[in-house]
Amino acid sequence: MTAPVFTLGQLAERLGATLRGAADKPISGLATLHEAGPGQLSFLANPQYRKFLAETRAGAVLLTPADAEGYAGDALLIANPYLAYAQLSHLFDRKPQPLAGVHPTALVAADAQVDTSASIGAYAVIESGALIGAGVSVGAHCFVGARSVIGEGGWLAPRVTLYHDVKIGKRVVIQSGAVIGGEGFGFANEKGVWQKIAQIGGVTIGDDVEIGANTTIDRGALADTLIGNGVKLDNQIMIAHNVQVGDHTAMAACCGISGSTRIGKHCMLAGGVGLVGHIEICDGVFITGMTMVTRSITEPGAYSSGTAMQPAAEWKKSVARIRQLDDMARRLQQLEKRLAAVTSAGNASSDDA
Amino acid sequence: MTAPVFTLGQLAERLGATLRGAADKPISGLATLHEAGPGQLSFLANPQYRKFLAETRAGAVLLTPADAEGYAGDALLIANPYLAYAQLSHLFDRKPQPLAGVHPTALVAADAQVDTSASIGAYAVIESGALIGAGVSVGAHCFVGARSVIGEGGWLAPRVTLYHDVKIGKRVVIQSGAVIGGEGFGFANEKGVWQKIAQIGGVTIGDDVEIGANTTIDRGALADTLIGNGVKLDNQIMIAHNVQVGDHTAMAACCGISGSTRIGKHCMLAGGVGLVGHIEICDGVFITGMTMVTRSITEPGAYSSGTAMQPAAEWKKSVARIRQLDDMARRLQQLEKRLAAVTSAGNASSDDA
Amino acid sequence: MTAPVFTLGQLAERLGATLRGAADKPISGLATLHEAGPGQLSFLANPQYRKFLAETRAGAVLLTPADAEGYAGDALLIANPYLAYAQLSHLFDRKPQPLAGVHPTALVAADAQVDTSASIGAYAVIESGALIGAGVSVGAHCFVGARSVIGEGGWLAPRVTLYHDVKIGKRVVIQSGAVIGGEGFGFANEKGVWQKIAQIGGVTIGDDVEIGANTTIDRGALADTLIGNGVKLDNQIMIAHNVQVGDHTAMAACCGISGSTRIGKHCMLAGGVGLVGHIEICDGVFITGMTMVTRSITEPGAYSSGTAMQPAAEWKKSVARIRQLDDMARRLQQLEKRLAAVTSAGNASSDDA
Repeated sequence: MTAPVFTLGQLAERLGATLRGAADKPISGLATLHEAGPGQLSFLANPQYRKFLAETRAGAVLLTPADAEGYAGDALLIANPYLAYAQLSHLFDRKPQPLAGVHPTALVAADAQVDTSASIGAYAVIESGALIGAGVSVGAHCFVGARSVIGEGGWLAPRVTLYHDVKIGKRVVIQSGAVIGGEGFGFANEKGVWQKIAQIGGVTIGDDVEIGANTTIDRGALADTLIGNGVKLDNQIMIAHNVQVGDHTAMAACCGISGSTRIGKHCMLAGGVGLVGHIEICDGVFITGMTMVTRSITEPGAYSSGTAMQPAAEWKKSVARIRQLDDMARRLQQLEKRLAAVTSAGNASSDDA
Repeated sequence: MTAPVFTLGQLAERLGATLRGAADKPISGLATLHEAGPGQLSFLANPQYRKFLAETRAGAVLLTPADAEGYAGDALLIANPYLAYAQLSHLFDRKPQPLAGVHPTALVAADAQVDTSASIGAYAVIESGALIGAGVSVGAHCFVGARSVIGEGGWLAPRVTLYHDVKIGKRVVIQSGAVIGGEGFGFANEKGVWQKIAQIGGVTIGDDVEIGANTTIDRGALADTLIGNGVKLDNQIMIAHNVQVGDHTAMAACCGISGSTRIGKHCMLAGGVGLVGHIEICDGVFITGMTMVTRSITEPGAYSSGTAMQPAAEWKKSVARIRQLDDMARRLQQLEKRLAAVTSAGNASSDDA
Repeated sequence: MTAPVFTLGQLAERLGATLRGAADKPISGLATLHEAGPGQLSFLANPQYRKFLAETRAGAVLLTPADAEGYAGDALLIANPYLAYAQLSHLFDRKPQPLAGVHPTALVAADAQVDTSASIGAYAVIESGALIGAGVSVGAHCFVGARSVIGEGGWLAPRVTLYHDVKIGKRVVIQSGAVIGGEGFGFANEKGVWQKIAQIGGVTIGDDVEIGANTTIDRGALADTLIGNGVKLDNQIMIAHNVQVGDHTAMAACCGISGSTRIGKHCMLAGGVGLVGHIEICDGVFITGMTMVTRSITEPGAYSSGTAMQPAAEWKKSVARIRQLDDMARRLQQLEKRLAAVTSAGNASSDDA
């Protein structure tokens, strides 16, 4: 499989960009300004990288008209170069294209329905009553549980597990190792012994969702765990039972969302953020990396917790001081009182004088 | 598969609950007070939800006798409604029931022993010397390594890996993607290069244990990693080599337990808790979410670390101040000394006056 | 499979250690000083465990010559007992040895190349153009994507996923559930909707690397994600797209490295460390557990963040005080000014007197 080649003119046309330079210049790939060679297209999205523009060897660059003024080489001028790069990136993707049809080694239950345009990979197992939509690709070694549904255009990497009664919308991408519909962590404590609560809800996932490698989304205890449209979940994220994630919210890797918590629309969680259970996060919230969220958020905006990294020796002092902080606060208050007493005594003397 | 239907009378009898209302009312499911319809049973366990009782449309409610006084609808009266809900939940679980027998595509080593009542799923691989007990269900795509043992009544979801020499007790549930017996992280450093230490111990897991999706439990370096009876581990937990977890301890998702650490019985770790290696946690400890545990705990009780979430702008100030904390503490001490000097000077003056 | 037996003399010869005691004493295993029996060899590496030497029942002990002076039993004297233990550990490993050849159920693409000395496990899938080197073992249920390469001597546990265009060096060990080459988390935001960026880079992994269970290493957005020689990654680590990890760096479990970050050589990250994206960590850095790293590190040394665990009631006070810290700092400054004023006023009076 050789890399595809396009001309700069073809790419300009595809994007609706203004072409500056040789329309017939062949472009065989994409690369950063720093790494691109003469046959590659690059882009300038982050102003920090403007310095690389002068010395780039790229065959052409995606630029805003404003940035293009300072650049003499071939260019495609467009309002949002990063979005343009996103659009072109798919042209150069060497990800293997699935072939329609059921691999001879795949096991599809007699009463499961697989669209004829779908691709079912080697050793995949599709259980009773499952529905696989048009153009769906189910990778090798995937397991699709009873009555689960994958909407049209979905793509499951090899080795994805869907338990039973998992409903997935259209054009959903799920990376390898993800587990959707595992049994939520629910137990009733009876004299110190944990008694299991069957998790009889399912999982409902909207359209255009991405789910990262080894991410887990548990089924609901009673009703379904809900993931909205356009939600993007990175790798190794944990979504507990009964969680609801609003449309177009994105989470970076290693976030953990505890049971029954509801997250609004258009939120962004950086990596390693943890949310306690049974809270609510409103729309438009941004949470910085590794923040511990123990209460609801009712106002859009950015939120953080944690302490800054220090050299370990200094950090040990900070840590010790934090443990003394309550004592320090009391001593500070004492000082204020005592100083006020001294000052007022002094004032009195002055007045007396 | 249609949902099962029970009468309220049948459910009362099964629980030993006092029935108040129509014994022949059909109940086809469970739901929260908020979401239940006329054919569903609900429950009141958390006093916070008492407000939903007045307006619930549930066909009947599991209640304590005390709470039932304020409720006019059909009810099942019982001392512990949450435990009763846990017990009934299994009646309404649509989780597919495994069929006894070895799937024709499963590969079972000639010298492995599989009880005739066990179920071995499609494409499962059972290696030499393994023992699969009565009533065990091994899901599709599972791998059971050499000489590993699964006690009676165990249930492995699809796609679980047990390495060799993993001993699992009775009635153990393991969710998809879990890896038990992976090689612990052990290396000796030789002039900057890490030399691997073979992990020659195994893993021993007690009875009635639950292991969540994508959780990993490493084999011991020399002796076995040990998980006690009744331990409940949520998803994406990491248990390193030589760890010991006491009976009936529960951990929520994303906890990480470093090598050779020992955790007592009846402990609870909330999500994202991390324990350093080679420490000991006594029985009856509760650790709140995302706590960093760097030393042993010798007294039962609740423990925490970390800072509270703040709006990011305020947080930046807090973070900067924490780095100045050692300096602040010294200045506070200075102030105390100086004020004491002033005060004693002032006192002297007063005395003089 | 019975445990192998060696004589003490054989072990001494293999290590180049000085034998003290019976050369023909049979040794059938390794154990800690505390747990070893008469047929087992133990070792003293950590001075903390010297106290166990007096009462050990071990058949022999690996010791430095200095430590051997205080021990009367049979011993193997060597400069680095821990390294010696690492070397001997492989002799007693009961890990099943793979047999050369392709399992009849494995699916190998017609144009994939598998060395005749390699072992391909049951139900493994090897895609078009893949190259499997000499002596490589690919476990059951593994998936090796198109054009991916596994260098000689590699060992993949059952159920590992390599996507397409993943290049792996020699003698690389990958534990079960690991996912290499998953699609990096890249999206361009278009009016609140995330547009996917195809991840057209691959992953390049050096020689002698270890990758833990359920660890994920994403493919690059444009160029490859790079893992250097001798890197050791524990379980459930997340390496995002475009990350570069320098030679001989080790990370304990649950670390998360955000996109485009570069980590130097010979670094050590303890468990649960998180690194923000687009930063650089120099060679020789040690980061303690659960540290949040939000900026580049340019000096070798140890770094930390976070607060120390406290009993929850005390912690609540600390947390509240941290939120007041900016206010406290201002009040402290006020006090200093006021006290200076008082003192100078006092001085003035004295001068006046």
